Amino acid sequence: MSLVVIGSMAFDALETPFGKVDRIIGGSATYVAWSASYFTNNIKQVSIVGGDFPQEEMDALTNRGVSMEGVEVVKDGKSFFWSGRYHMDMNTRDTLVTELNVLEQFDPKLPESFQDCEFLMLGNLVPAIQANVINQLKNRPKLIVMDTMNFWMEVALEDLKKTIGMVDVLMVNDSEARQLSGEYSLVKAAAKIQAMGPKYLIIKKGEHGALLFHGKQVFFAPALPLEDVFDPTGAGDTFAGGFMGHIAKTKDVSFENMKRAIIVGSAMASFCVEKFGPNRLKELTKEEISGRINEFVDLVQFDISL
Amino acid sequence: MSLVVIGSMAFDALETPFGKVDRIIGGSATYVAWSASYFTNNIKQVSIVGGDFPQEEMDALTNRGVSMEGVEVVKDGKSFFWSGRYHMDMNTRDTLVTELNVLEQFDPKLPESFQDCEFLMLGNLVPAIQANVINQLKNRPKLIVMDTMNFWMEVALEDLKKTIGMVDVLMVNDSEARQLSGEYSLVKAAAKIQAMGPKYLIIKKGEHGALLFHGKQVFFAPALPLEDVFDPTGAGDTFAGGFMGHIAKTKDVSFENMKRAIIVGSAMASFCVEKFGPNRLKELTKEEISGRINEFVDLVQFDISL
Repeated sequence: MSLVVIGSMAFDALETPFGKVDRIIGGSATYVAWSASYFTNNIKQVSIVGGDFPQEEMDALTNRGVSMEGVEVVKDGKSFFWSGRYHMDMNTRDTLVTELNVLEQFDPKLPESFQDCEFLMLGNLVPAIQANVINQLKNRPKLIVMDTMNFWMEVALEDLKKTIGMVDVLMVNDSEARQLSGEYSLVKAAAKIQAMGPKYLIIKKGEHGALLFHGKQVFFAPALPLEDVFDPTGAGDTFAGGFMGHIAKTKDVSFENMKRAIIVGSAMASFCVEKFGPNRLKELTKEEISGRINEFVDLVQFDISL
Repeated sequence: MSLVVIGSMAFDALETPFGKVDRIIGGSATYVAWSASYFTNNIKQVSIVGGDFPQEEMDALTNRGVSMEGVEVVKDGKSFFWSGRYHMDMNTRDTLVTELNVLEQFDPKLPESFQDCEFLMLGNLVPAIQANVINQLKNRPKLIVMDTMNFWMEVALEDLKKTIGMVDVLMVNDSEARQLSGEYSLVKAAAKIQAMGPKYLIIKKGEHGALLFHGKQVFFAPALPLEDVFDPTGAGDTFAGGFMGHIAKTKDVSFENMKRAIIVGSAMASFCVEKFGPNRLKELTKEEISGRINEFVDLVQFDISL
C-alpha cells in the first residue's frame, strides 16, 4: 500500500535577499517526495519531465524509496521552468518567468502498480489533471490531500471546485482561503470551504504557522522562529510531504494524528528554507528531524490550571 | 503590595469595517486596568484626565479594586483624544486625529501609598515619563514591564533606549521589534533588544499570536481564530493587563509562569476585540475567562512521541 504523489518536477531560478541561483531542481512533487521519504519508503511519483532533467536526481529519489515508474520523460522536451524573486519579508515574491514546456502536454496515466494507492497527495497542478488522477484509481484511497493555488481560482474556478469536492483535505494559504471563500475571517472561510467538500482544511500562513480546521475543531501549529529564512521555495510542498509522510507511516487519519502530521510537516518546512532549493532536504538525519520536532514541543507547550 | 499601572485614560473615535463610534472611553491604562482587575484587586492607576472624563468611568474602576489616587484630574482641561480608522485586515489603521490635551502637561507624582509597588506596568507613553515613574520608586519592583510604540522610535529614540535599559520585559509588535533592532529576523531582533537591557522580550503579532524570548528560550502563543474581529483598539493593552494580572496574582516571575501569563493575556485580548472599546471587558465572568483559556489549550495541544 503506497503513497502516490502527483505534481511537477522542474527547474527553478531563484533570487532572494541572500543570493541567487540560475538553475536548481524544483517542482512540487520533488519537494513532497524528498520530505515524505524520511517517513515512508513506499512512494510512487506521478510527473512529467523533459530530456534535460538530470538522471542522477531521479536516481537519488529512487534510492529513497520513490518509484519513478509514473514519471514520463519526454526526451526531446524541456522540463517546466519557473523563475522568481523574493522580497525582504520572504512572504511575497514576483514571478519573473514561467515556461510550462512539457507540463503543457501532461496527461498522466497511472501505472497498474500504482493502484495500491492508500494515500494520495495531489500537488499543485491543473485541477482537471488532479481530478483525472483520482478518477483513474479503482479503489478510493484512505486519504486524498490536495494542494492548490490562487492562479487556478482565477483561470479554472469551476474545475477547481469540482476537484475540491472530491478530496478529504485541502491545503491553501491564508490569502487563497480568503479568495476561495470570499470571507475575510479564516473561521468563516474554513466553514465555507468545508461545505465545498473537504472535511479537513489546512491553512498555511508561512512564518505565522498553520491552522487545521475540522468541523468545529481547530488546531494551530506555529512556525519555528528562525535566524534566517534563506529561500522559502518549496516550503509549502515540503510541509505537505512531511504531513503525508507521517500519515503514511502511521496509517492513522484521525484529527489527533493530523495534528502530529502538521507538526512534522512544519518541522520539515523549517529545514527546507535553510538552503537553496531542496538541498537541505537531501542531507537530513533522523536525529536532526526529531530534534527539530522537539523544538516545536518546547515552543508551544505550557501548563496552565485554573 | 500592588500592581501599579501608568498610561493614558482617554476618549477614542473609532471606525472599523463593522461600524463606528464618535466618542468612547479608551487609553492604555484604562484597558490594562480593566483586564488586570479580573486577576487582582490591588491595582494603582497613574494617569491624567480632563474635567470631561466621566466620573462613573472612574467609579467603575474603583469598584474593581483600582485606586484612582494617582489619576490627576485637570478640571478645566480636556482628556487625550485619538481617532482612527481600521482597514479590512484590522492589522493596519490610519490615525485621523491625535489631540494630546492634558497629556501634554503630564508630570506624574507617585502618591506615597504607591511605594508598595511590587509589579509595574508602563503603558505606552513618552519614554522619559515612563523612566520618571521608575525613578520615583524607592524600592525596585519585582518586575517592570514596558509597552511602547514606533512613534517614540522616531521622535525620542535616545530616551526610549534609556527607559528600555531599565525594564525587565519589553512588549512591542513585530514591525516595532524590526525597527528598533534593525534586524528583519525576529530571532536576531530579539537578541539585539535583549542586549539593550530587558531580559524578556514579548513580540505581539496581532492575529498571528505572540512570542516570548528569554536568552535562548522561545515560547509561542497563538491568537484564537475568531469569527469576527469587531474592533482591535486596546487589544495590545488588554493583553498587557492580562499578563500583568496573572503575574500579580501568582507573584511568580519565572519563564514558565510568563508563558501562562501570555496565554491569559491572549485570552483577554480575544474578548477585547469582540465589541467596541473596552465594553466587552466590563462584563466578563470568571467562567467565560477560564472557558476561553481552555480554548487556547485545545488549540495548541498535541501529543507526539518519536
